[in-house]
Amino acid sequence: MNPTPNHSPYQKPGERLEALGLGDLVILQDPTSFCFSIDAVLLAWFASQKINKKDHLIDLGTGTGILSLLIYGRTGVAHIKAIELQPKMANMARRSVLTNKLEDRIDIICGDLRNPGDYFHSSSYDVIVCNPPYMPVKRGMANPKDTLAIARHEIACTLEDVARFAKMTLKDRGRIFLIHRADRIVDITVSLRAEGIEPKRILPVHPYMGKPANLILVEAMKKGRPQCKMESPLFVYDQNGQYTDTINAIYTESK
Amino acid sequence: MNPTPNHSPYQKPGERLEALGLGDLVILQDPTSFCFSIDAVLLAWFASQKINKKDHLIDLGTGTGILSLLIYGRTGVAHIKAIELQPKMANMARRSVLTNKLEDRIDIICGDLRNPGDYFHSSSYDVIVCNPPYMPVKRGMANPKDTLAIARHEIACTLEDVARFAKMTLKDRGRIFLIHRADRIVDITVSLRAEGIEPKRILPVHPYMGKPANLILVEAMKKGRPQCKMESPLFVYDQNGQYTDTINAIYTESK
Repeated sequence: MNPTPNHSPYQKPGERLEALGLGDLVILQDPTSFCFSIDAVLLAWFASQKINKKDHLIDLGTGTGILSLLIYGRTGVAHIKAIELQPKMANMARRSVLTNKLEDRIDIICGDLRNPGDYFHSSSYDVIVCNPPYMPVKRGMANPKDTLAIARHEIACTLEDVARFAKMTLKDRGRIFLIHRADRIVDITVSLRAEGIEPKRILPVHPYMGKPANLILVEAMKKGRPQCKMESPLFVYDQNGQYTDTINAIYTESK
Repeated sequence: MNPTPNHSPYQKPGERLEALGLGDLVILQDPTSFCFSIDAVLLAWFASQKINKKDHLIDLGTGTGILSLLIYGRTGVAHIKAIELQPKMANMARRSVLTNKLEDRIDIICGDLRNPGDYFHSSSYDVIVCNPPYMPVKRGMANPKDTLAIARHEIACTLEDVARFAKMTLKDRGRIFLIHRADRIVDITVSLRAEGIEPKRILPVHPYMGKPANLILVEAMKKGRPQCKMESPLFVYDQNGQYTDTINAIYTESK
């Protein structure tokens, strides 16, 4: 991501405006807080393969709004509702949407995904994308109310919360796309199936060939039939520590 | 596997004696019935990495006895009990054991794994290996009592049966090693966790790089902590349709 020369009228002191490499799209980032990483780029690529322009989409726990922007940039999808618990993050996401003049396409909601009925119609959405917190809550966490802690630990969003949300809001045969830590694969499959959200595709992401996966991409379907494709894995770096051709292509497709 | 020049005194008409490429080990095969394939070779390789000579091991649904023989050949493990439902298969497995003079090491039991208490002490075994039937039962199956049908379909052995068997017979922190169809990954993880048998390692096996996995190897631990390693995958064939170096090494290690 290259810094963009333009300033946003919605930018606050200390925030950085970055180009996304997708048309003219930009995003506000706070370098002292949560910045997006390759995870969002991979999930946007994975989900966008199955998204149609007319789909109604939810971005669950949007943070800075990155996934909504990347998926809009890739697919031109018409209707995105993005929910974020933390007011400061939701505010920054909303200002990024305004900067991109996408307020008719991307609606940022500050709210708690554990109460979906407060914000969403039931059984009405085609697609959910979600980059949930990766870490289980540990006892004696230093700052359980800290912005970063909430984004990274399952304080306000467990896998069970995500699965229940999907069950409540997705249409039958609607899909949820997740990226998560590979070592949580059992927690993910068990939580989703428990709510009738059947995993249909798993794509492992390995840092290098020959190393265990650190991330997995998962596609699951409400009321889907039990049969799951284990996709050919992605390798992020080659033996020289450079992005592989596949990863470069994923970044380039964004442009 | 090359045919061996020797005849076994335990051989019956129509049966073939094959060398396993592991010392002098041989196996009887009935070419008109179930013959072992790469699945058994991969599972023996995967499980043997974690087997100690003194372990007490169960081979669950042994069929022709192939897994017991391969694992004995790789590890010299002292105590193997192998259970097989079908009398004809169990009889052939027993005759292969006799041919190899391994009757003190490998005990072939003809019995139903759904009644483990009839044959096994509870919470007493270090390791289970299992190459279960791959296919769910379908309505209107032509021959549900046919030998091949029982070996291939979940008529007499479901994943739930395997998980319950493991819960009953394994010591705490004892391990089960499985090979199965990759598209059953959710059924496998859900069934095992439901019985407190926690998947700890998953290794996908792809026919070619770039193609979805068709098989997975799974290691799970009784009362294990929830955290599962997604191992670097195996690719069976290279772009020329030849075994990859990794697969050749697995076969060569056997020799």
